[in-house]
This record gives sequence, structure tokens and C-alpha cells, in this order.
Amino acid sequence: MTSKKKPAISPRKRRTRTDSRPPTASDVARIAGVSQSAVSRAFTAGATVAPRTRQRILEAADLLGYRPSNIGRSLTTGKTRIIGLAIGYSDNSFFPSLIRELSKAFGSLGYRLLLFYTGDDGNSDPVLAEVLNYRVDALILASAFLSSDLASECQSAGTPVVLINRKIDGHGVVSVTADNIGGGRAIAQFLLALGHKRVAFVAGIDSSSTSRDRELGFNELMRARGVVPLRAAGNYTLEGAKRAARGLLAGPDPPDAIFFANDHMAIAGIEVARYEFGLRVGDDISIVGFDDAGPARWQSYDLTTYTQPIAIMVDHVVDCVRSMINGDGPAQEDRIVPGELVIRSSTRRPGN
Amino acid sequence: MTSKKKPAISPRKRRTRTDSRPPTASDVARIAGVSQSAVSRAFTAGATVAPRTRQRILEAADLLGYRPSNIGRSLTTGKTRIIGLAIGYSDNSFFPSLIRELSKAFGSLGYRLLLFYTGDDGNSDPVLAEVLNYRVDALILASAFLSSDLASECQSAGTPVVLINRKIDGHGVVSVTADNIGGGRAIAQFLLALGHKRVAFVAGIDSSSTSRDRELGFNELMRARGVVPLRAAGNYTLEGAKRAARGLLAGPDPPDAIFFANDHMAIAGIEVARYEFGLRVGDDISIVGFDDAGPARWQSYDLTTYTQPIAIMVDHVVDCVRSMINGDGPAQEDRIVPGELVIRSSTRRPGN
Repeated sequence: MTSKKKPAISPRKRRTRTDSRPPTASDVARIAGVSQSAVSRAFTAGATVAPRTRQRILEAADLLGYRPSNIGRSLTTGKTRIIGLAIGYSDNSFFPSLIRELSKAFGSLGYRLLLFYTGDDGNSDPVLAEVLNYRVDALILASAFLSSDLASECQSAGTPVVLINRKIDGHGVVSVTADNIGGGRAIAQFLLALGHKRVAFVAGIDSSSTSRDRELGFNELMRARGVVPLRAAGNYTLEGAKRAARGLLAGPDPPDAIFFANDHMAIAGIEVARYEFGLRVGDDISIVGFDDAGPARWQSYDLTTYTQPIAIMVDHVVDCVRSMINGDGPAQEDRIVPGELVIRSSTRRPGN
Repeated sequence: MTSKKKPAISPRKRRTRTDSRPPTASDVARIAGVSQSAVSRAFTAGATVAPRTRQRILEAADLLGYRPSNIGRSLTTGKTRIIGLAIGYSDNSFFPSLIRELSKAFGSLGYRLLLFYTGDDGNSDPVLAEVLNYRVDALILASAFLSSDLASECQSAGTPVVLINRKIDGHGVVSVTADNIGGGRAIAQFLLALGHKRVAFVAGIDSSSTSRDRELGFNELMRARGVVPLRAAGNYTLEGAKRAARGLLAGPDPPDAIFFANDHMAIAGIEVARYEFGLRVGDDISIVGFDDAGPARWQSYDLTTYTQPIAIMVDHVVDCVRSMINGDGPAQEDRIVPGELVIRSSTRRPGN
């Protein structure tokens, strides 16, 4: 985008050679022979400007030592081109993928993500004053640990809020989630078809809507077929999932199929079943996750799971955020993105 | 930080009840009976203010509907409280950990990270205009894919730059890296002590200083003992590492020990050795990585590796960035953080 040629003199020197006032967009427009709005577009990622015009503008800017300022611009447009992303600490590889996909999608539109990591104690309120401080154009909430207050407080301050991978019932916010209920149901159906009757569910965090919905779909279908799943809490951590798996497998009537509320926990479950209980995963026991995050595809795990289609979910988030920034977005909407069951070797072969 | 009590009337209504001018920090200071600087500190994460004073200020702010603005503040202080983080797309779980630790450390000082993801084609120059647009207080470069130009261009624009996990020779920048040469050397020493003589190195990206330094230390010591390692390139990707491992293991004189330039590739190497060549990892072949990222500790891999102490590296980055923002930072410095060899079961037992 910028000229590759090394400047003969530094921008600072060049600037003071003419006068001491910093060069403005209109100086650049005059030199380049274009409109001021073309200059502004040339410095906005994702905005349309003909390559040759852009080149001329960048050369003029280089010559003058001109540098556009989002801060200056934000005072006139009221926009910072910053999207806040509030996300909780987690080892789950789903979140890095989510950050990356959101970054890509918003980056191509000229927005950048400002990260607000939150703790895992549900006490997210300190973030509010800060989020407002940065005057983000919108806020995306992707943490299971956030209280519902932040969403409604930001909204009442006029900042668009979109939740991804979680829902808040009855709060009038926009959310984008995978089909967690449908996924839980599909997994139940599959395990029943394999002939499993002693099944268990390992939950994530109790306050998390993703875990609740996955359990809801799973239990509903199981109970309709007369099966009552065992239950343990894994809190979405490796250690929590290991404890849960140990408790279930050491019990008097251990399950022969376990559905973990995400892949991250399922992988810990495979380790416990294989190395602590000597079970052949996929024969002696079926293990299922949810997400289809990276490690699910690694051969040592080869995990049956239900996909969260991150790219499609991110498209929906971008769509909602853009409409809301333009003032014509939905006030309340739950967008549910269907995924699919991916059958790998961590579950029994049908017919066995 | 904010008052938990629900306001009886909305901030907007409250504000118009008195006059139409938005409330200022000095209004809040007057109502709370404190100095204006105390108000500013109360709204700056990481700044010192007595809890009771903060409470009084937040109540006054709540009453007036006052909201501090980093944008307004940045025009007077010239600071945005934003640190840019340029990072490349990668599946390597080292990077999510790095982002998280940097977020934590800078968050506690009242800074937030603005993410600039870059592509994997070495063409990072489009980012420059944008980074300058956002007027970040400093820029951290953590991508192996970035060209050296960005660092020097930002510096000449007066923006402090710190590299983490990479170095640029002779460019007068500040960098923080693990002891990549020492780590490579320690791994060579260990494999030689186990009696390995047919060893191989799987490189990351050729332009990456981390891969080059790890190879340098490894080769130096191997050659000093009369061993010439085989070599293949894995490009820091799972697929690249698999291809490299297949090529080495299918060769006429396959190695019985492979050092992969990071854990991410080593895990792919374990999969190929185990599932495609039927080798018992830790008996028939020794496999070593570098990073000690999450999956290295998972039982299915249990990878011998050399640690990159992320938390300590991040402390150094924070230290350099703070000094540079205050104008008394180093102009050029390579900080090298020692790690240690962690011996797990992916390598032969000594004495076997």
C-alpha cells in the first residue's frame, strides 16, 4: 500500500522545510489532484479507491509527511474503527480460532479488534468503564464468564452489543450461536443408534448457555427413549474434565458413552479413559465432543464431534454489527447457525 | 469499579435535567470533593486511588452521567492507552498463550491490545498506515511473517516498537526472545547423551529467526561431535511437518531422533511416526519439540521439549514498552530469556 521507495529525507525534516503546521488531508488532496474524500478513502482499509489514485495519494502523503489520524477522524465522524472483543481466559482452542476469524472479517472492513480479556470469576463489571472509555464502535461478547449486566449497560450507553457463542435470555440483545440444542439432540440420536444405554454428560460451566443448551437437547432425546444420562461437571477445563471422567468411570455402573460439552474436555476424557482406565476408546467406550476445534482432528484423538461453523457465525456477527453501527440493526435476535455431526473413531462403529 | 445500584433515571435524562452541556471531569471532581486528577486516576485501570475516594468519584460520575473519553484524553496527553499487537495467522498454540499473557500484563497497567493480524505471505506493509492511523502508544511485533520494514518505519514515525519471539539483525530495534541457540544446543547435547547418531532437524519458516537460531545451536554442537544432522522444512504448519517427517522416515537411512523447531510440528511428527510408520515414539524414535505449549503436556504426546517462558518474556516486553513510552527506553537491545529442557516420554530413557 505504501511506496516501497526509501524517502531521501525523513518525513519530519520534509515537513519543517515548508512550514511548521502539520500537513492535512486537504494539502494531500491538492498535491495529488483528488478530492479530500478520496484521500480519506485511501487511508481507510476496505474502502474503495482506484489503485492508481491510491498510489498518487500515497506519494503525495509521503512527500508531505502526512499521516491520517483515526483520533482526529473520530471527532468528526464519531467513529473510532475499533470493535471491542470481551473474551474470557480459556485454554480451549475454539477461542483463538474465533479471535482470528473475527480479526480477519472485521480487518477486511477497516475495523480492528481491541481485546478485553476478563477473569473467570464472573466479575466483569470493571470492564464497563473501560469499554466506554475507548469509545468502541461496537462490543462483541464472547465470554461465558461475563455477567449479563455489561451487555445491557453498554446498550443503554448507545454502544451496539452482539453476543457470540452465548445467549442471555430476556435481555433484548443480539446473539449468534451454534445450534447447541440441535447438536445435543443429534449426538443423543447417534449414541442411541450405536446401542449405548449407559450414557453420561459432562457439563461445562453451569452459568454458560452453551453447556445448558447442549445438555438440554441431549437429555430431552435420551429421556424420550427412556435413558437417563449420568451427569458430572467439568467446568470447561482439562483438569475439571479429568476429575469428572474419573468420577464417572470409577463409579459402580460406569457409562459406555460420554458426551463432553466441548472438544477440549473430551480430549481430557480420552486421556483418562485410555491411560488411567486402560479402555480402548471407540471400542470399550464412545467419547463425543462439541466444536470440531483443531485437536479433534489429530489422529491421537480422532474425535466424533458436532461442528461449530466459526466462519459462518462470524459472518452473522459482522452482518449484525454493521447494521447496528448504521443504526438499522436488529434490537433483539437470536441467530442460530446449524452445524453437523462429524463421525470419527472415538465412537464405536455402527453395527458393532 | 462501578456502582452496583441501578440508577433511578437514565444518564441521558439526568444530564438534560441540569443543562445540555455534557458533564466534565471537573464537574465530577467538584461534586465528589476531590481533585480533577483523582477523577482521571479513578477512570484509569491500574492507576492508584484510594478505594473510598474511587467510590465517591464513581457515585458522582453516575449521578451526573459522566463518561470519561480516552479520545478526549488522548488529545491532551497524546496517549491512546492502546498497544498494537501485530501477529501472524498460526495454529500454533504458543500464540494464543502469548496474546493472553500480553493482554493480562498490559491490562493491569491500563493498556489494551489492538490486534493486527497479518497474512502469511510476508507482505505486511499495508498494516503500517493503519497502525499509524490508530496512534498506538507502542507496537509489539510477534509475527515471523512480518517484514523488517514495518519495525523501522514505525520507529521513524516515533512509535516505540518491541519484537517478541523474533529478532531482526542490525535494525536497531528492541527484541525479547527465548534462548533459541542455547535451547538448540541443550537438545543436541541430550540426544547425543542418549546415544543418537542419526538425527534430523525439521525447520520452521526460513525467514524466521527462531527457527534459524534453534538450528544453529543444534547443528553447532552436533557437528562438534562429528554428527551431521539431516534436514527438512516444515514451515511451522502441521501439514508441512507431516510431509517433512514422511520424507525423513521413508528415506534410505532414516533418523532415530528428530528435533522439530516447535512443539506444534513435533506433534504432527509423533502422529506420522506412530500411525504411518508404526514406530513406538520414545523407543524406536526420539522426538523433541520447542515451546512447551499446552499439547506437549497431553499424555498422548508427552513431548520432550525446551520451554519458552512466556510470562517472563512478557514481563520484559512490558518493561521495555513502558520505558520507551516514557522516553527512557533502550534504543537497541536483544533480551534473551533462558528456558529449560523438559524431559518426557517422547524421547528414549537414558541408559537404553
